[in-house]
Amino acid sequence: MRMYDIIKKKRDGGVLTSAEIEAFIEGYVGGEIPDYQASALMMAIYFRSMTDEETALLTDAMARSGETVDLSRFGNLSVDKHSTGGVGDKTTLIVAPILASLGARVAKMTGRGLGHTGGTADKLESIKGFRTSLSVEEFISQTEKIGIAVTAQSGNLTPADKMLYSLRDVTATVDSIPLITSSIMSKKLAAGSKNIVLDVKTGSGAFMKTEEDAKILAENMVRIGKKCGRNVSALITNMDRPLGFAVGNALEVAEAAKVLRGEQKGDLYEVCVALATEMAALSLRLSPEDAKQAVIKAIADGSAYKKMKDWISAQGGDTACIDDASLLPQASFKKTVYAPCEGFIEKMDAEAIGTAVVMLGGGRLKKEDTIDYAAGIILNKKTGDYIKSGEQLCVLYTNNEASLVSAEAKYLEAVSFSQREPVFRPEIIEIVR
Amino acid sequence: MRMYDIIKKKRDGGVLTSAEIEAFIEGYVGGEIPDYQASALMMAIYFRSMTDEETALLTDAMARSGETVDLSRFGNLSVDKHSTGGVGDKTTLIVAPILASLGARVAKMTGRGLGHTGGTADKLESIKGFRTSLSVEEFISQTEKIGIAVTAQSGNLTPADKMLYSLRDVTATVDSIPLITSSIMSKKLAAGSKNIVLDVKTGSGAFMKTEEDAKILAENMVRIGKKCGRNVSALITNMDRPLGFAVGNALEVAEAAKVLRGEQKGDLYEVCVALATEMAALSLRLSPEDAKQAVIKAIADGSAYKKMKDWISAQGGDTACIDDASLLPQASFKKTVYAPCEGFIEKMDAEAIGTAVVMLGGGRLKKEDTIDYAAGIILNKKTGDYIKSGEQLCVLYTNNEASLVSAEAKYLEAVSFSQREPVFRPEIIEIVR
Repeated sequence: MRMYDIIKKKRDGGVLTSAEIEAFIEGYVGGEIPDYQASALMMAIYFRSMTDEETALLTDAMARSGETVDLSRFGNLSVDKHSTGGVGDKTTLIVAPILASLGARVAKMTGRGLGHTGGTADKLESIKGFRTSLSVEEFISQTEKIGIAVTAQSGNLTPADKMLYSLRDVTATVDSIPLITSSIMSKKLAAGSKNIVLDVKTGSGAFMKTEEDAKILAENMVRIGKKCGRNVSALITNMDRPLGFAVGNALEVAEAAKVLRGEQKGDLYEVCVALATEMAALSLRLSPEDAKQAVIKAIADGSAYKKMKDWISAQGGDTACIDDASLLPQASFKKTVYAPCEGFIEKMDAEAIGTAVVMLGGGRLKKEDTIDYAAGIILNKKTGDYIKSGEQLCVLYTNNEASLVSAEAKYLEAVSFSQREPVFRPEIIEIVR
Repeated sequence: MRMYDIIKKKRDGGVLTSAEIEAFIEGYVGGEIPDYQASALMMAIYFRSMTDEETALLTDAMARSGETVDLSRFGNLSVDKHSTGGVGDKTTLIVAPILASLGARVAKMTGRGLGHTGGTADKLESIKGFRTSLSVEEFISQTEKIGIAVTAQSGNLTPADKMLYSLRDVTATVDSIPLITSSIMSKKLAAGSKNIVLDVKTGSGAFMKTEEDAKILAENMVRIGKKCGRNVSALITNMDRPLGFAVGNALEVAEAAKVLRGEQKGDLYEVCVALATEMAALSLRLSPEDAKQAVIKAIADGSAYKKMKDWISAQGGDTACIDDASLLPQASFKKTVYAPCEGFIEKMDAEAIGTAVVMLGGGRLKKEDTIDYAAGIILNKKTGDYIKSGEQLCVLYTNNEASLVSAEAKYLEAVSFSQREPVFRPEIIEIVR
């Protein structure tokens, strides 16, 4: 089987067979197929797309291209969550303990932040002592013992996805629904959970800028995930503004703890309850109504909060800082940003706010960059709030004083005001099952 | 300017600017742009095509990517011919001396054969002593002195085309009209002639299998060539069967001499007269009627034949073998193929016959293969001829006796018979000016 013929077939609108897709993934990961043939195929797929059958075959072949995690011992209890990436998205820190406290098994691989979106592994590492590199044995036995373990993605998981994603990133072939689907879902398949809930974000801070695109991607991922033998549902959620009030690693850990203590409602609470409800419905085989009641109760009765501390403790983290946020990394410099005018906050560009946090040291532009865990922004006001001139809008935190001026400017660029009360779409835009 | 943005713009159907096209060609030839980005762009162009303006800019940038030949000293007299490649196509050996004998200047770069089509440089090298590697000075001064010089393509001409063609060849991006046009026309621009006549072949032995495709390519090349400041016309000619009776290097040299001596009419003569007429019309500014009369006269009065011998002599070749074909390389083995049945020859698959000649040693499958100049086929009968069972169809020539059986089988596969007299399209299907 020649790669040339595979490219030509897809170029001409043909449907690739299982053998052709296997040959491509094996040959590419094995180094026999060069990048220039792979990129030509990616561009042909960009134009010709793929059938569900092809996408499922590609996803499966990519999932099997490296190591895979076997969670079959947990039966239907294993449950995973994936977010397409947002700003201020600390939902994993909240929903994972909720699910574990309800008896589900959350054995989760997680990533690091790059660009304007953060990563759960970075957030967890802002907790003193927390180990994000668990061996496979530790990962499984901790999940068995306390129902929850979160580890940074292993180097050997889905090498095909790593190679293809790097290639697509520089050849303008990222924006293809079947290729996005196979990239995300191959990692989820390899990570082993029987149940998968996808959080597809849409809006200014999201990969999918429009609801229509988000819906197409969500539906595609749910269909392909089911074709590959998993229970999958997806929430399309609003990322027109950062989620919650904290953006930045340690600040987000503190906010997550607050939500689990039942001290904070609002958008973040709402999205977490919705995600956890779907996860509970799938993994515990509950009706959506029963699942929601169980989730709300797990927060209200403190069992999810207790599970969060058990989890942090199991991975070597200092739980004192969960109870007392002042024990988390603290910034040497802070700056309050005041409203430049009076009116309703009409828009907050989540991507620009994420970028301001990167400027403060709270994120990475390149993989090699180090992170200032204390850096970030606390939003005192969010879209829809009415602000008087001179009122506090937010507070910037950093250990690099020089970054405050440019970060403030970036933040103010991101916010717009209006004299008319703005109308917003809901946090949970749609559920795809 | 980032290559990523250039790929994305073309992917999204945008029109590339002069600066973008220059940046791509310079960066690719300079090694800064990797193959995997170039192949993604080629595939995007395959799907999105290019405007005439873009194609002309690409052609021009490719032409300037390496050395170029300056023929401006010859004013409007310089004339070149290009064939998209056929089987038995020895027209350069015939039309170049005709044009030189009429006072035009034919300073021609030519190629070697690969696959089922032959190359003029190989044909010329079957003449004892003939040098196909002329220095630029020799090339120009010989053209000045006798009006004709033919040299094998220099290593430094259009490196962008060499690199892109190799890449397209393995990424299924060859079949794109703007890319084919820029590949062919960039070489013609770099080769320097003011006037260019294109022979676009169509049929079983041609790159363009259908008349429609051949016409689109011909029209595109003529438009782009004119946009780049050259006088260009194209003939769409029939390649449903080999051109003439000889296929194979030395055999074709002998046939070319025969045509120039006025001893052979038929398809080859007709195509050569048509090509030479267009070349004379453009370079000598004659009406098509006057040009045709001049061409016919140059053959009839022996001046073109004399010019052929002056040319061969100027490049160190033995002219005795032009007068006496038995002095050309001779095959040690020959085999006559007899008709397996009675009827009209309905079809001759030119590609398969070209492949039979390669089997006999007369062509190359890989660039490194050496050529048996004596190898080839003389066709005693061609399509439309009525054959009695047991009559001679052709004679195979080779120095590798073992190849005769498989070449005969291949030849017989290529030929089909019919009891009804077949109808053929003309040799000159259309002229595009």
